[in-house]
Amino acid sequence: LAYDAAAMELFFNPRSVVIVGASRKTGPGSFNILENLLAYGYRGRVYAVNPRASDILGVKCYPRAQDLPEAPDLAVVTVPRELLPEVVRDCCTRGVRLFIFVPQGLGEADEVGAAIQSEVLETLRRHGARAVGPNTLGTINALDGFMSSFMGLTRNADPFPCGLICQTGLFLATDLGQTTSLGKGIDVGNQADIGFPDALRHLAEDPRVKVIAMHMEGLRPGEGRLFLEVAREAVARKPVLVYKTARSATGAEAAGSHTGSLAGSHEVYVAAFEEAGIIQLKDVDDLDDTIKAFVFLPPMRGRRVAILSISGGGGIMAADACDDHGLRLAEFSPETRARLQEMFPSWMTVSNPLDVWPAAIGKEYDPVFATCLDIVAADPNVDALVCIGGSMGGGVDIGDFVVEGARRWGKPVTWWLYGKRAAAIAAEVESSRCVPVYPSADRAVRALGHLATYYLDVLGRRKEAPVRPVGLPRVERGPGLPDAAAGTNGPGLRARRATVRAMGAEAFDLLRSYGIPVARWAVASSPQAAAAAAASLGLPVVVKAVGGNVLHKSELGAVKLGLATPEAVLEAAEDVLRRVAGEGSEVRLLVQEFLPGGQEVILGAKHDPHFGPTVLFGLGGIFTEVLRDVAIGLAPLTTDRAHGLMAKTKGYAVLAGARSRGRSDLEALADTLVRLSWLVADHPEIVELDLNPVKVFAAGQGCVAVDARVLVRSDA
Amino acid sequence: LAYDAAAMELFFNPRSVVIVGASRKTGPGSFNILENLLAYGYRGRVYAVNPRASDILGVKCYPRAQDLPEAPDLAVVTVPRELLPEVVRDCCTRGVRLFIFVPQGLGEADEVGAAIQSEVLETLRRHGARAVGPNTLGTINALDGFMSSFMGLTRNADPFPCGLICQTGLFLATDLGQTTSLGKGIDVGNQADIGFPDALRHLAEDPRVKVIAMHMEGLRPGEGRLFLEVAREAVARKPVLVYKTARSATGAEAAGSHTGSLAGSHEVYVAAFEEAGIIQLKDVDDLDDTIKAFVFLPPMRGRRVAILSISGGGGIMAADACDDHGLRLAEFSPETRARLQEMFPSWMTVSNPLDVWPAAIGKEYDPVFATCLDIVAADPNVDALVCIGGSMGGGVDIGDFVVEGARRWGKPVTWWLYGKRAAAIAAEVESSRCVPVYPSADRAVRALGHLATYYLDVLGRRKEAPVRPVGLPRVERGPGLPDAAAGTNGPGLRARRATVRAMGAEAFDLLRSYGIPVARWAVASSPQAAAAAAASLGLPVVVKAVGGNVLHKSELGAVKLGLATPEAVLEAAEDVLRRVAGEGSEVRLLVQEFLPGGQEVILGAKHDPHFGPTVLFGLGGIFTEVLRDVAIGLAPLTTDRAHGLMAKTKGYAVLAGARSRGRSDLEALADTLVRLSWLVADHPEIVELDLNPVKVFAAGQGCVAVDARVLVRSDA
Repeated sequence: LAYDAAAMELFFNPRSVVIVGASRKTGPGSFNILENLLAYGYRGRVYAVNPRASDILGVKCYPRAQDLPEAPDLAVVTVPRELLPEVVRDCCTRGVRLFIFVPQGLGEADEVGAAIQSEVLETLRRHGARAVGPNTLGTINALDGFMSSFMGLTRNADPFPCGLICQTGLFLATDLGQTTSLGKGIDVGNQADIGFPDALRHLAEDPRVKVIAMHMEGLRPGEGRLFLEVAREAVARKPVLVYKTARSATGAEAAGSHTGSLAGSHEVYVAAFEEAGIIQLKDVDDLDDTIKAFVFLPPMRGRRVAILSISGGGGIMAADACDDHGLRLAEFSPETRARLQEMFPSWMTVSNPLDVWPAAIGKEYDPVFATCLDIVAADPNVDALVCIGGSMGGGVDIGDFVVEGARRWGKPVTWWLYGKRAAAIAAEVESSRCVPVYPSADRAVRALGHLATYYLDVLGRRKEAPVRPVGLPRVERGPGLPDAAAGTNGPGLRARRATVRAMGAEAFDLLRSYGIPVARWAVASSPQAAAAAAASLGLPVVVKAVGGNVLHKSELGAVKLGLATPEAVLEAAEDVLRRVAGEGSEVRLLVQEFLPGGQEVILGAKHDPHFGPTVLFGLGGIFTEVLRDVAIGLAPLTTDRAHGLMAKTKGYAVLAGARSRGRSDLEALADTLVRLSWLVADHPEIVELDLNPVKVFAAGQGCVAVDARVLVRSDA
Repeated sequence: LAYDAAAMELFFNPRSVVIVGASRKTGPGSFNILENLLAYGYRGRVYAVNPRASDILGVKCYPRAQDLPEAPDLAVVTVPRELLPEVVRDCCTRGVRLFIFVPQGLGEADEVGAAIQSEVLETLRRHGARAVGPNTLGTINALDGFMSSFMGLTRNADPFPCGLICQTGLFLATDLGQTTSLGKGIDVGNQADIGFPDALRHLAEDPRVKVIAMHMEGLRPGEGRLFLEVAREAVARKPVLVYKTARSATGAEAAGSHTGSLAGSHEVYVAAFEEAGIIQLKDVDDLDDTIKAFVFLPPMRGRRVAILSISGGGGIMAADACDDHGLRLAEFSPETRARLQEMFPSWMTVSNPLDVWPAAIGKEYDPVFATCLDIVAADPNVDALVCIGGSMGGGVDIGDFVVEGARRWGKPVTWWLYGKRAAAIAAEVESSRCVPVYPSADRAVRALGHLATYYLDVLGRRKEAPVRPVGLPRVERGPGLPDAAAGTNGPGLRARRATVRAMGAEAFDLLRSYGIPVARWAVASSPQAAAAAAASLGLPVVVKAVGGNVLHKSELGAVKLGLATPEAVLEAAEDVLRRVAGEGSEVRLLVQEFLPGGQEVILGAKHDPHFGPTVLFGLGGIFTEVLRDVAIGLAPLTTDRAHGLMAKTKGYAVLAGARSRGRSDLEALADTLVRLSWLVADHPEIVELDLNPVKVFAAGQGCVAVDARVLVRSDA
């Protein structure tokens, strides 16, 4: 359904709301939404539907939705699943158009639940109504003062300017995190209607939201591209973070029964997030840490970090962390070094990390630390600062200096505070909202690493949209391709019955029509014809079987390489036909020029259920088969992205000229990847495609696909 | 110096102590050791030396150590470095035999500092005295009531039974961690005298210490083997954890100026820790988390984890974490499933992770959770439990159930509590000392992963000590080897001047004498002699240059492969000699049998400054050169460890039969690795050794070293 800005606004900030199934039980352990809403200080009009009560907590109860004196903006429905269809019909009849469905046991659970969910969705569609959930805590909006959670929550008077989209009640029930809080949050639950794209667009368009965080188990099949489009626009306005769970096989299986998500391939999610510029987080610590960093800190202008520590050992931990999180130690300018050196005993040569202690021996520690900080922060070679220590008691209390300085310097400052008093001091420091405090060096540095990724990599290197290469045709219906129109990228595809088959030699025609270089070939139906074809192609040749039911020709022994004489071709062709005798009458002989030398690479493509066409790159042989050293990207690609994709593999070094082999023709490979990516983007009916191997030759010598396997789907 | 149990005991628990250089300044910001010691409640006799004060805080001051009325067990010295030599002489004269040296600016700083440190050490040796530091906070001992830290600390009345060895004041000043505390801690600082081995043995032998944690920047050169020996004995008694810093190049450089540590190769440390069974930690969070886990939890008997969650989403996060930390999701027994299923609505099929919420709808949450916990904990298929949630307020408070249950079940239970109230609830729960509470699913699971490593991998699979293979000679002085006695494994070696040279063809004799298979060879000094040698070896052969200054013969073009005729041998030999004409008169021609086929692997060895002889294994070609896919182990190896070493490389799959190549002769390779490991263990004068390539053939067909490069040191 199309994005509905007004509906999204009302899900978070309704002028009137009815709780259908409001409970008479109140107090701790009752999980009473009505009670929670009132306690939260909601100022709109509130109604309750409960046939067995006249009023609850002073709110008049109506037996059914039809009896309501007005059609409220939003209905929060918390009834057993069996009652849901009737309740929704009643509400729609009364004119309600927005719903939050709290109950579990629907689409994610069993067939009965799925049927109820379908029936409810049908009613919604008929009335043009929209819904969040089911299986959700709904929304929390501290900015405007609304919440629908059955876990109680006090409204935060000064919430973080942070928006959250999640698939668990955990983050709503805890007001986001350990040290952060929610501006606006939505639990999309099962995503029966409203999902990530709608919620993300809403938060991206609310100017009061400065950072968007997501907890995602999975998107709905087929909506990956829409999500990406929305995410790209959101990322251009504000940082977007994701904690993707259900990464592992076990986690993904559990997610299926939790929110009904088909988690999909984690590798494709990773590629998609990267493509959109979404920052990927490791766990809830990382989520909390990173939200603070983006809310508190100014943009990061470079990767050079200065570390000032009360402890030499702590400085080393932070230096290790810089290495881990893509940051560098700043090299202090000669002026900075000279000014610092005056403060330190002669035996210590100042450097970064800077152990401040020796400068403070016999002096008051705090002002010495503050002076060092000011000197270092003024150095143009320093892009960000990490401070370490200061909660140790006994006269060390640098908090005010750090906060005051951070306001002036205009550079990001993070602070690692350790020990049992750290959390209390951190809370006080963080009330300034300008210096985030972390419990380890690793986390203080990691937060800066995410800042660098967003401000330098994502915003700094805006990616261009893929443009169809000049002269690239759009083959609507290649030879051997089923009707392209029959394949679509939508979820509807999943419902239809599909048959999948391998293309025969027509696959080579299709590849060539997209400008993908293919070893010259001819098709023959007899050994004699094969020998003739070989003569016209020029010897030596390769002979192999194609078409029919032949899928794994190598395993059948139906590939013969380096045939150098007409007799050899004849003999090989006869043998091949013998070996595939049982594979159907449409089997043909493919005769191809034999290309010795070159480095073997694999180019592949797959239709992902969430993100549609994807391409894969890897070196041949052990790189792919033993090391699984492959990179995955979304199709179509730009030339830049094709190069970037190849460079992600470890084996890339071989192509780039490691082992004194000389550089391979990376430009030809990139061009082929781009063409392949358009081919699969144009043809959603291609389920899977492998060019294995593609031989790439020295720079300027090009590359050639030697074999191709293309699986296409015809929808019944 | 030999381990001195009595001295180590007194460093932590002296009956009398003198603070030399005690400050008259007291209160916050004075960092007064005497004041801190008194405030800590030390009950021994305390003296102070300060020529400018008559008493400090009621403690009588003496102008010099000679004036003390007794020789105290321990002197804590905190004077400027220039005064150190005299102070130490005075103390030693008075009969003091143990010192803690607080000041910075000594061995880690500059040449003056290093000279002062040498002078002080000389005085100590003369008097049989021992010292901790310099550059240290000394020791803290909450068990007996002593501390020497200039950062103040209140004595913990009920400390964790945890010992700590560190190279930073950070952990002593904060009483270990965020949620843990110190039984006994020692900051070894520069390790001028007392280092990790002494401290580790002391803590291993104190029965009150149940867990030992280490923060290590680096060992002293040459003491790696002693450390390992001590660590192996410690690990057999109690878990030993290490947070190794200065991992990265930048961190290691910073460590040099911090504690004077030559951090050494991180890979060798990793191999050594693993060899000893020391648990390796990632950061200070991991340190805190893991100490709690070992102190609170019973042994873990298997890797099967049950997850019970208030939130489906949280359970999925924990499932992902099990995958990351080497644990499995338990499969509930049919009986458990049946008992649980009765509690849940029919639409939910119970599974692991178990989302408890649906069972509690309309009921009181806490007792439902408690019943689920009891059922799951009783399942023999469950080795450990992870609980999630419970700090959300509004009637959810499962803490008492979890703690009470954990006492009964005898299985490890960790708890992930999230949100702003979590830390306070966690502190209360952890006061029970039986359930550790963590702020993320990842950390709650990671702690169990470390438990599994210790109880299952380390204690469960005790490693046998390497035994010299039957029939393996101990070549005391092989042909071409310098006097083996001249090379020792001690730090003294570093002081002497050494010259390093490459062995010539004698290297092959040495290898053969250890039973390492080498391609048959002959040495020739002329092309004619080479042709004759080739005829007697049998064609085809390889001809290459050896000896003289020839180090990189391939780069010189001085290796000729696959020479199949006498003429080819003659011509190749002439060409080789032309190419190495400038490389010295001792250059000879090496003629070797040419062995086609086989998989190329690399066996190497290096003398590590900390851990002595190490061996390296990797597949040849891209595996080593592009992917750096190598594994390092300590020599000598057992056959088991040799197999384990090979299996650590990704390329191992190729040898084990990936890509339908068939299995290589892994037994022959393991045997060769063992022999090589004894060769380098016997000969510390071998600085570096590469067998590159070694060709390994199909199972049962053996392996053969084709080329060898051996660098040996003669000490001047």
